[in-house]
Amino acid sequence: MKTLQSFRARTGEALGAPLPATTPEQVDAAATAAGDAFAAWAASSGEQRATLLRGLAAALESDREGLVALADDETALGPVRLNGELDRTAFQLRRFADMAERGVAFAFTDDPAVPGAPPVGHPAMVRQCVPLGPVAMFSASNFPFAFSVLGGDTASALAAGCPVVVKAHSGHLHLSNRVFGLVQQVLAAQGLPAGLVGLIQGGGADVGVRLVRHPAIAAGAFTGSTRGGAALQAEASARPRPIPFYGELGSINPVVALPALLATKGAELAATLAGSIALGCGQFCTSPGVIVLIKGAESEAFVAQLHTALAAQNPHAMLTPGMRQAFDAGVEHLVHAGAQPLLREAGNAEAPRPFLAQVEAADFIAKDALREEVFGPSSVIVWADSVAQVLQVLHAVGGSLTVTLWGAETDSTDTRALVRGAMAIAGRVLFAGVPTGVAVTAAQQHGGPWPSSTQPMTTSVGDAAIDRFLRPVALQDAPVWLLAQQGRPV
Amino acid sequence: MKTLQSFRARTGEALGAPLPATTPEQVDAAATAAGDAFAAWAASSGEQRATLLRGLAAALESDREGLVALADDETALGPVRLNGELDRTAFQLRRFADMAERGVAFAFTDDPAVPGAPPVGHPAMVRQCVPLGPVAMFSASNFPFAFSVLGGDTASALAAGCPVVVKAHSGHLHLSNRVFGLVQQVLAAQGLPAGLVGLIQGGGADVGVRLVRHPAIAAGAFTGSTRGGAALQAEASARPRPIPFYGELGSINPVVALPALLATKGAELAATLAGSIALGCGQFCTSPGVIVLIKGAESEAFVAQLHTALAAQNPHAMLTPGMRQAFDAGVEHLVHAGAQPLLREAGNAEAPRPFLAQVEAADFIAKDALREEVFGPSSVIVWADSVAQVLQVLHAVGGSLTVTLWGAETDSTDTRALVRGAMAIAGRVLFAGVPTGVAVTAAQQHGGPWPSSTQPMTTSVGDAAIDRFLRPVALQDAPVWLLAQQGRPV
Repeated sequence: MKTLQSFRARTGEALGAPLPATTPEQVDAAATAAGDAFAAWAASSGEQRATLLRGLAAALESDREGLVALADDETALGPVRLNGELDRTAFQLRRFADMAERGVAFAFTDDPAVPGAPPVGHPAMVRQCVPLGPVAMFSASNFPFAFSVLGGDTASALAAGCPVVVKAHSGHLHLSNRVFGLVQQVLAAQGLPAGLVGLIQGGGADVGVRLVRHPAIAAGAFTGSTRGGAALQAEASARPRPIPFYGELGSINPVVALPALLATKGAELAATLAGSIALGCGQFCTSPGVIVLIKGAESEAFVAQLHTALAAQNPHAMLTPGMRQAFDAGVEHLVHAGAQPLLREAGNAEAPRPFLAQVEAADFIAKDALREEVFGPSSVIVWADSVAQVLQVLHAVGGSLTVTLWGAETDSTDTRALVRGAMAIAGRVLFAGVPTGVAVTAAQQHGGPWPSSTQPMTTSVGDAAIDRFLRPVALQDAPVWLLAQQGRPV
Repeated sequence: MKTLQSFRARTGEALGAPLPATTPEQVDAAATAAGDAFAAWAASSGEQRATLLRGLAAALESDREGLVALADDETALGPVRLNGELDRTAFQLRRFADMAERGVAFAFTDDPAVPGAPPVGHPAMVRQCVPLGPVAMFSASNFPFAFSVLGGDTASALAAGCPVVVKAHSGHLHLSNRVFGLVQQVLAAQGLPAGLVGLIQGGGADVGVRLVRHPAIAAGAFTGSTRGGAALQAEASARPRPIPFYGELGSINPVVALPALLATKGAELAATLAGSIALGCGQFCTSPGVIVLIKGAESEAFVAQLHTALAAQNPHAMLTPGMRQAFDAGVEHLVHAGAQPLLREAGNAEAPRPFLAQVEAADFIAKDALREEVFGPSSVIVWADSVAQVLQVLHAVGGSLTVTLWGAETDSTDTRALVRGAMAIAGRVLFAGVPTGVAVTAAQQHGGPWPSSTQPMTTSVGDAAIDRFLRPVALQDAPVWLLAQQGRPV
């Protein structure tokens, strides 16, 4: 029997007893059980879905102390952050509960018949949605609550009427199992089938890939690396019956800071930015990895301020020893490609020190290696000669979850061009604050052009996340009894 | 120089002089020109887009007589159908013009700031859309106007703010070039760049595949065979920077006719269905290829009525000799797989005779070969023992553009189950009439689960077709001048 070992992130020691890896037969059983649970869940009312989602939120909160302590042991993210993340996860479950209750999944377009010959005349049409089917959900390492077992993918899929099979992340196995235990208690208490939410764990093709290939699976949802996401997307596309795969991948999240604003608010912005770079040890998909500045005295002063503020940061241990090693390798890769270090210190075996470097815009544009994401507290200053060159830098980035534009308060040819350039490559454009922190709101868009996500027309955070798991159906000349359903399942 | 020859569909004779195939360099030039035209078109107003789309509609109508005559020579679809299709195409262009003018592409969600700490508190957010970029559009054989150079894909892409490069279909090359000539006149008259709409033609990897691979191309749109669409989708996914590919592929469009309705309206329905099977020589993606009946006297009487009505049909010549041969091969394939012919006559070299066969539901479910689409006037009766077996038949079909349910007027356990089964596999469910004919309306959904389309969350006909070419962007803490744009391009 294959086993899996969890580790304490702060010390690298083994944590708890080894856990059994899910066998191929168990993967198939989880997918089949989700498939068996689909018909009834697809036919469930908004109220039933809301009751489940609220029950899951309450269950998380009821075990808060134990969950946060375990999460902290496995991830080193600290109790303040982890309590906040648990709050966010419960909030998100309740937000999708409210949406389910309001009937968002059952919204419909009534398109009455128009008499006469086509193309003007047409029969009575109604457009509504059906859930896709069981979702294979791949947890992320860096959000053990909000992008894991009960995270946004699971919440939005359940609200849409889809069962979920979760692939637990190896970085927080015990936490995943403890949360899954709560899920099973809630399902049992509400008389729902255990297979409505499944959990599998383990590495290699026998687990995650097998799940994506299973005929009962109708969609994939993933948060993680570009390499891992692209490989699973390829599997999803290569099935005899291809399925949509929603991957939220890596991103370097450029921050463009214009000189006039830096002249007046440089010190404050430097402190804010340094905090964002080091937050959670830089382990966010939205961590600002590139800072684009226009050459001049204001920008030089800002870099000195940023250097000081960043040197004062003390990042905590990274999530896993593998990520800690990957950080050093990524920094080395940047330096080898020509990034000139401004702040580079050794750190220890678990926690790195923040890294800051600088490059000329022309080099950044010319060399792919300078544009690669380094997961951790790293940022590269890109020196541009002009707004036109800033635009070339953004174009070279190509796709990012976010672009931050500081100093665009005034309407001008330059700020318009920068807004266009930012919108062309990002899912979210910020004009104040920092990109870390993704609000769960109606207008949120967490998903940008490739390589930041596989399907940039969709979002993994915010209300529109539910749309990923719904498919429209037009009903033509529907009978009266069916129209009376008003979009609700028959 | 490679050349391409057009043929008269009715006789197989060569039509006109050979046309030059587009060279690889010319494919690149068309994609580059579309890329160069993108920034200005993305920034265009709804009024500008509407003016172009209306100009294109008027241009089509101004050359109606010549276009219809040429289309009839190349496709044999006949002047009545072709005039109607031209009307529909102009209607569609004007409908997207109206949508552009109403600002549909600039719709936005205003999500004001909520004070307080997260997860409840959040910054001010606005959600709006940007166009994806140049679209590679692959014309269909069977709709030389409505799914070709100025068809729905082109209309919706232009309305979204995207340039288009059209791959002309080899079945109507002269028509494509004549329509393209009109497009170029309209672009020039409106002072728009010639590259906003491009045209390429020719077979093999040097043309269509090269277009999909070109870095300037941001999305693909395709109507045609499952094999062709799947191959291009694979190319779109295998790019260094993958792009969305919207393929509307094949479909067998089951018609379920319940005995009670057949008892009262069998003769009328048989005539309607026979007309739909033979319409346009069965060359519709929505042609009813499967008729599911429950065993009994009413159904047997209906089959006799259908046999008579279908034998009286005289399908015209098929679009190309290749399609004519493929029809015979498809029929042979069905018979070889066990379909028992009820109506099978030889036809001539250009026009086939309608084909009708029957199979047991258990065989239909067991054998893939009985569920393959035969493009042309062919339909297979599937004999089921019960409603439960009808549901198994629908499940075996797996994905279809349409399902038609005749006899579901009364609410019952059976009709509910049938509606659920139909909605689970189709993009459109009809309760009266026949699936051929796809209205251009607000609620239309022309796209169902695989293999009927590559992205069943989208539609290629109807108002929502524009969504395929737009991507959401969230603006966080946007400055006042930007909010004043109210979603319009900056």
